[in-house]
Amino acid sequence: SVNPDLASERHTASFSVEQLTALLDGGAEQTRIRRAVVEAIESDPVFSREDQYFQTQNERYEAAVRKAVHLQKKMHEMGWTEDGPEYKYIYRALSGDVAFLLHRVFMRSISVLGSDKQIAKWIPLATQHKLIGSYAQTELGHGTYLQGLETTAVFDTATQEFILNTPKISAMKWWPGDMGRSATHTVVFAQLYIHGKCYGIHPFIVQIRSLQDHSLCPGITAGDIGPKMNFEHIDNGYLLLKNVRVPRENMLSKFCEVRPDGTYVRQGSQKINYFTMTTVRISLLSDEVLTPLMKACTIAIRYSVVRRQSKLKPGEQEAKILDYQTQQEKLLPQLAAAYAFHFINDYLQELFDRGYREIQRKNFDMLPELHALSSGFKAMITQHCTAGVEICLRACGGHGYSLLSGLPSLYTKILASCIYEGENTILLLQTARFLIKCFMAASAGQPVPPSVTYLAAVKHGKCPAKNKLDFLSPDIYTEAYQHVAVRLTSSTAAKLQDLIQSGVKKYDAWNQCTVQLVQAAKAHCHYIAVKNFAETVEKLETKAGIQKIMKHLCDLFALHGIFANTGAFLHDGYTSAAQMDMVTASYLDLLAVIRKDAVPLVDAFDFTDQSLNSALGSSDGQVYQRLYEWAQRSPTNQMSPAYERYLKPLLHNTLSKL
Amino acid sequence: SVNPDLASERHTASFSVEQLTALLDGGAEQTRIRRAVVEAIESDPVFSREDQYFQTQNERYEAAVRKAVHLQKKMHEMGWTEDGPEYKYIYRALSGDVAFLLHRVFMRSISVLGSDKQIAKWIPLATQHKLIGSYAQTELGHGTYLQGLETTAVFDTATQEFILNTPKISAMKWWPGDMGRSATHTVVFAQLYIHGKCYGIHPFIVQIRSLQDHSLCPGITAGDIGPKMNFEHIDNGYLLLKNVRVPRENMLSKFCEVRPDGTYVRQGSQKINYFTMTTVRISLLSDEVLTPLMKACTIAIRYSVVRRQSKLKPGEQEAKILDYQTQQEKLLPQLAAAYAFHFINDYLQELFDRGYREIQRKNFDMLPELHALSSGFKAMITQHCTAGVEICLRACGGHGYSLLSGLPSLYTKILASCIYEGENTILLLQTARFLIKCFMAASAGQPVPPSVTYLAAVKHGKCPAKNKLDFLSPDIYTEAYQHVAVRLTSSTAAKLQDLIQSGVKKYDAWNQCTVQLVQAAKAHCHYIAVKNFAETVEKLETKAGIQKIMKHLCDLFALHGIFANTGAFLHDGYTSAAQMDMVTASYLDLLAVIRKDAVPLVDAFDFTDQSLNSALGSSDGQVYQRLYEWAQRSPTNQMSPAYERYLKPLLHNTLSKL
Repeated sequence: SVNPDLASERHTASFSVEQLTALLDGGAEQTRIRRAVVEAIESDPVFSREDQYFQTQNERYEAAVRKAVHLQKKMHEMGWTEDGPEYKYIYRALSGDVAFLLHRVFMRSISVLGSDKQIAKWIPLATQHKLIGSYAQTELGHGTYLQGLETTAVFDTATQEFILNTPKISAMKWWPGDMGRSATHTVVFAQLYIHGKCYGIHPFIVQIRSLQDHSLCPGITAGDIGPKMNFEHIDNGYLLLKNVRVPRENMLSKFCEVRPDGTYVRQGSQKINYFTMTTVRISLLSDEVLTPLMKACTIAIRYSVVRRQSKLKPGEQEAKILDYQTQQEKLLPQLAAAYAFHFINDYLQELFDRGYREIQRKNFDMLPELHALSSGFKAMITQHCTAGVEICLRACGGHGYSLLSGLPSLYTKILASCIYEGENTILLLQTARFLIKCFMAASAGQPVPPSVTYLAAVKHGKCPAKNKLDFLSPDIYTEAYQHVAVRLTSSTAAKLQDLIQSGVKKYDAWNQCTVQLVQAAKAHCHYIAVKNFAETVEKLETKAGIQKIMKHLCDLFALHGIFANTGAFLHDGYTSAAQMDMVTASYLDLLAVIRKDAVPLVDAFDFTDQSLNSALGSSDGQVYQRLYEWAQRSPTNQMSPAYERYLKPLLHNTLSKL
Repeated sequence: SVNPDLASERHTASFSVEQLTALLDGGAEQTRIRRAVVEAIESDPVFSREDQYFQTQNERYEAAVRKAVHLQKKMHEMGWTEDGPEYKYIYRALSGDVAFLLHRVFMRSISVLGSDKQIAKWIPLATQHKLIGSYAQTELGHGTYLQGLETTAVFDTATQEFILNTPKISAMKWWPGDMGRSATHTVVFAQLYIHGKCYGIHPFIVQIRSLQDHSLCPGITAGDIGPKMNFEHIDNGYLLLKNVRVPRENMLSKFCEVRPDGTYVRQGSQKINYFTMTTVRISLLSDEVLTPLMKACTIAIRYSVVRRQSKLKPGEQEAKILDYQTQQEKLLPQLAAAYAFHFINDYLQELFDRGYREIQRKNFDMLPELHALSSGFKAMITQHCTAGVEICLRACGGHGYSLLSGLPSLYTKILASCIYEGENTILLLQTARFLIKCFMAASAGQPVPPSVTYLAAVKHGKCPAKNKLDFLSPDIYTEAYQHVAVRLTSSTAAKLQDLIQSGVKKYDAWNQCTVQLVQAAKAHCHYIAVKNFAETVEKLETKAGIQKIMKHLCDLFALHGIFANTGAFLHDGYTSAAQMDMVTASYLDLLAVIRKDAVPLVDAFDFTDQSLNSALGSSDGQVYQRLYEWAQRSPTNQMSPAYERYLKPLLHNTLSKL
């Protein structure tokens, strides 16, 4: 039976939840396929995550390997293939709790970086799991700055082999997933040396464990890097190489080859390869970043209509905590952001598909823009979503702090997305570099890519809003965001030029502007996200109340961003203090409006109770019963040796006399 | 041997580290005592935390009980007593990783709420550990709002007993520490009923486990609530009561008594009791909140001078990451905040000691102000320090995400401080209520408490700063903070009055202003923190470079707060856009200045390597070596059954045919 406090929230939905779900999925047929995958996965006990919060790192690893192996069988049973329509829903249905994800990266790197001959040799072996692959790039002392990697691969003309070494401890490979315990092979990135000359970083296929008994190969030291904040199911590993020899054919050689005599030959264009790395940043957003935020919103909002605390009105029963303005102000902007980022993700996916087609036609014009967008949005969205999940956790008070709420593990996992695939600050500075370049070009009357043409059209006007309702006009707020992005970019460009003209070295000047450059990059992405949300809403059908509620969310997303960054909008007087008060008034009004549809808006994300894996967020709202029953199964409710060893002697006063 | 990149940072300190340590400790003699305690604790292997990151919740609990029992012996050996000078350093030396903390709360609640007779009976039993106590207030469905607690205690005149019951699942006691597995007794808060009439919440001593064999007493259901985000060493518990009878003498009766005939008698003043609860919020700040931030700063800053990444200048070696402005902008404001909060903590402790003396003289005038300050500062400092620890974690990239960095556990633990002892938003609204009341009183010409007299002196001037150096004047920035606090309080008071005058019910009007009330409360606390830091610096001796570096930190704390909240200062034009640019310039200049002393400034916190328990933060800077050696000892480097069970059949293609 559904908790009546939750049920009552669903009776008053202003829109069709089912139609909103279909919109999010990209059509009702997609919803049907997704649900079929979820049903097949969740009805299979091997994929259960019920005991997850009670398991040790070792148990989590073992379960993840078991699931990965079982998944092969399941896919065959269900007739799912890697290029079928179901495939993209499998990982989400498993909540990512499965091993061998790096095996896929191993395969992709061979497909992208390998010659046809190498692909023909290795891909079938990997597909049939005759080996388990990993991808060894990051080192203990080296991450983002790839040129700094220290592992060496020296070509030995006599034996036609590369000799791989870890010259010092900071050169040890560190972090590669699946490498700590599972992998038999890995792609090692190392500095290539031929006849004493360094040719930079190249990829080499290296076997690290025996295919017979899984023992480490000669010259290999490898193991698990130990406990992390999350990802207990993944065996992130370390790898030390000591005179490990691999044949010449093991250097992935689509772009560069070493001939038998040691001649180094570069061939083809590596640009497509860089592009592949760029797309990874976009492709991870959906499952790794948006889904966790959507889950956290679902949990926190459902809990906030079931939890009652204090009296809002004297004489009445305690109020649902979502009726407090402060609680709405915590949660509803996160909900709006989840929708905003869903739509910008659609936009980016489409843009990158188009870019891919262009690049295959050898047209590389879009590359700088795509790189800037993928860097900036990866940083912005991971940052916002991580903060959003944390807000949801805290908004659930003590119960949010219990692992059984599901929120701590969502938080500790999403946090990693701010660090992997490019640390966010460094990525934002990449975007900023592009912005500055385009701003200078635009100022000089040169053409610039579509996403930054607005930089050329600097307007020095004022915000025309006259009352709080004007701030519900997308034109008004989109223009305000645009104005801020232009101002921050142009003022930082000016500071940079001033410094250089005053004699500061270019690299020093750049460093002295980086705090402000990061602000400019964020403002640029925020502007595009707001603009895209507004344009998406404009195009929605008006039926079933969908457009109306999406318009409210778009307004909330935009006004929350202004409310939380008032200084950026007030700074040059584009927005006046009186207008800022209107923004605040409209923003607070919107909270009360959206609060009414809050539960239907999270229901539309269509998470099953199993996938939420949360005592607070289940669809029936039976929070307390679930917490109690679940807690009773905790291993901490088994007998502890602490009683006999310490408590009993203490209480019985039989500890050796003090 | 110390990593040369770390060693070089220490050679150029602008001040005496040892003298700064003594200042933080409150004198060189205190430093000596503290170090002696740390030495005694850390040289005892029972107190080792070396394996902590590898242990399960059960293992952590067992170790914490073992340490708690061993500590009794240790104190006797060392001649430490509960009222000796060493006592306050013990918990810090143990990093809080010990059981029976609630036993102390149990004792304190009896001392404060019990009659002389009850104190005489129970305190000796507890002191000698003939029982283990807990404190059962929070329920599954009830936290902050104490009046909402649902557990009942019905007085039975016939047997002269109270009959305690958990009427429904939301009334189950939930969270009490030490109760899940250890406690034999607890103080239960329940609604008192006599002859069918409810007299509100009262405390009752209830035995829950046998003193002989530790089995649960009749009518008691209790256990552990399971895994949490941290506090694995504490057995937070649940408790269900079914017709549990306790004698009339077990109701703690310093303030209220039930006579044998059922007559309810209220005696004395409860005010001193409320005050005790208020002081808890202040007393937790030092060990639970400031220490973790100081540790996180120590770890992140030491790591940031050892880690090198990318080239700042072409042709040079990779740069220390602390040389990047963006890294300075992440870490140095946290360092400044740690010092700011240390000094405000001193101020609050002193104020509360004075308040305690007044209250013992039956002068309760200071109570509202102390309540407002303790609520606001508990919220502000826990919020800032939690965010600061998270920033430190993220600033260490991938290695910060490893448990071996120590940062994840600092974060997951400090996060709880935002929730316990009063949820922060609710506390800030308590402070806001006081501010609004005082503002109204001050406006009407009535006297108000010292910390809020500034509300009466509303000045409508402009910030007088003329260049960026003016913003290094404490008068300039303190006044700016004061102006913002007054503006936010007065504008919200005006909104509140407007709403009420327009016919909105008082409670609705309050709810509609809460987002802004929270802002006002934060601004008030921020102002006092800045003012106190500036006044503290003013009074410091100028010798040994201490005052100079503290002045820089004070400036940074103040300017960072403006830089991060520009809108609040720009809103009414008190600060102009041109002045805000001066703030930014001064702020960024300060980062480069303080960066030079960053390592000495964290060295002054004087944490031992054992207490940091971090591969990144050790005093010798041997980061990579330590990570590698530590990881090798992880249980994840033992043989896993996953190979024989799943990997081998997969690789050998002997899985049952698909």
